[in-house]
Amino acid sequence: MSTSPSPAQDRRYMAAAIALSGRGRGLSTPNPNVGCLIVRDGHVVGRGWTQKGGRPHAEAQALEQAMDRARGATAYVTLEPCFHLSPRGPRCADLMARAGVARVVIALRDPDPRTDGQGAAWLRDRGVRVDMGLMADEAARAMAGFVLRQTLGRPHVTLKLGLSLDGRIARDDGASRWITGPEARAHAHMERARHDAILVGGGTLRTDAPRLDVRLAGLENRSPRRLVLTRGAAPAGWTPIATPDDIATLDRVDHLLVEGGAATAAAFLRADRVDRLMLYRAPIIIGAGLAGIGDIGLTDLTQAHGRWRLIDMRALGVDRLEVYERVRSA
Amino acid sequence: MSTSPSPAQDRRYMAAAIALSGRGRGLSTPNPNVGCLIVRDGHVVGRGWTQKGGRPHAEAQALEQAMDRARGATAYVTLEPCFHLSPRGPRCADLMARAGVARVVIALRDPDPRTDGQGAAWLRDRGVRVDMGLMADEAARAMAGFVLRQTLGRPHVTLKLGLSLDGRIARDDGASRWITGPEARAHAHMERARHDAILVGGGTLRTDAPRLDVRLAGLENRSPRRLVLTRGAAPAGWTPIATPDDIATLDRVDHLLVEGGAATAAAFLRADRVDRLMLYRAPIIIGAGLAGIGDIGLTDLTQAHGRWRLIDMRALGVDRLEVYERVRSA
Repeated sequence: MSTSPSPAQDRRYMAAAIALSGRGRGLSTPNPNVGCLIVRDGHVVGRGWTQKGGRPHAEAQALEQAMDRARGATAYVTLEPCFHLSPRGPRCADLMARAGVARVVIALRDPDPRTDGQGAAWLRDRGVRVDMGLMADEAARAMAGFVLRQTLGRPHVTLKLGLSLDGRIARDDGASRWITGPEARAHAHMERARHDAILVGGGTLRTDAPRLDVRLAGLENRSPRRLVLTRGAAPAGWTPIATPDDIATLDRVDHLLVEGGAATAAAFLRADRVDRLMLYRAPIIIGAGLAGIGDIGLTDLTQAHGRWRLIDMRALGVDRLEVYERVRSA
Repeated sequence: MSTSPSPAQDRRYMAAAIALSGRGRGLSTPNPNVGCLIVRDGHVVGRGWTQKGGRPHAEAQALEQAMDRARGATAYVTLEPCFHLSPRGPRCADLMARAGVARVVIALRDPDPRTDGQGAAWLRDRGVRVDMGLMADEAARAMAGFVLRQTLGRPHVTLKLGLSLDGRIARDDGASRWITGPEARAHAHMERARHDAILVGGGTLRTDAPRLDVRLAGLENRSPRRLVLTRGAAPAGWTPIATPDDIATLDRVDHLLVEGGAATAAAFLRADRVDRLMLYRAPIIIGAGLAGIGDIGLTDLTQAHGRWRLIDMRALGVDRLEVYERVRSA
């Protein structure tokens, strides 16, 4: 008989499962980037995250690692194990029950109507103890693209800006190199690998000809698809979209990174199509220069309040990263 | 025989003396805002800070509190006790020796040539143990106005800005009320009380007619002098100065707070007359609007780097305060 984890241990293991889910972010579409941890008698016996292209699922991978040690164990999954039949792989709820898992702790109930509670019910019917809702907010944040696809029918959008303390991205003449330092730039490159696609405006594409690739050792092949916001044609290797609303039509893009310039940032903010802000702030003052964000159509300052909440902050060399998320009431 | 404090206790007591020195900031001119703590056998027996107008000195006040308990005690002072004779009061070095203080711990050697080591020497000659240099940087920051008067011949200048995340202070039409919330506004009012004078630009004076007073219960009488940056005349109750350089001519102003607008902020930055930045940042995006800082004459982005260092940061309601200090190599 295996011992049962305490509530504090439950949280630690779920936090680890959420961290694992991050490894599939930007890779797992069309499937959600789920994370899974299997624990037996205080030992982690299996770890998994949804792999490139969506298969295997996190649970299948973790169960394969655990082998017969899954019997009597507790599994932590960031999303309710799937129940719907697919030609691409097994139903994870069924896999878990067959493996003899004693307890499944689930962060987020699957909003996909093909599962939506049925995975948990299937497990309970087979005598598996199921606890749902632990760290649901954190899990939803880690799988934000999937959640927004289900709720708003569009990808999750991160707007990234490299700013001076006074909100500038360049001098008046457009000189914008070397605002942030090497640590911030490396972090921004890693962030690219966590997105399915990156978008810039037509002006930025013409002026800067950005490569938008991931220039980090070992992650070169994680460079995401390249999109350009333009009403015209796009050069080879670039997908054009005409308006921010059109992101809803993108196939296999759960997480979209918008990298500028100011007019593009403003267009996405004006359309309320930004879910997360990543501000890389250098401790410099530029004064006269190009603002990072153009006209967002604000007609009253009171509208501006209550929309953004700071969720993370860290030092990157002399620079600082601030992450804000859009507050949306349910 | 009294017991001697440990090095860790020394630091704690000196930190307390530095905190006391803050109480005289904005009040103590023409004298430095010194703080003093007297400790005997683990008990604080005297506390003092330079009073309004510069007298009594911190040491005199602390010794008066301690009375005969000063004998054999340790005194912590943020600045070397004065040695020069003045018709306005006693020499603190002499006061300390006469009171029988056994040890004097000094943060900063007095750069004023009338003392400059002679206070410490006087004490040592009378058998008092003197330790100099403990937390000198922190003490210099707390008495920044005095230090800059001695080194650069001008007051210490703080530039305060209330900014959106994108560096705006108002919408295009000038609407600037309610960028930051009540906690940040209260903090900004308290900061006014820590300055001898506040300055705004001529445009701000004409447009906003700011009162620049301290609207906090119990601190109403701490409202500082009001200055305006203008080449013209100033209305009653306002002192005009024509250029940022002219702050050197101000009498009895050790700590100057510059509150804007954008052209005035830029003028002080361009003249390198800003020593501290206080950014009250609201988690809002304004987009098109008035920038907080105008043209500072930057011709090359590389010049912008290495000038500002974050020294404090705190949450004020939903807003955040960031404090930067100008990095100047010695």
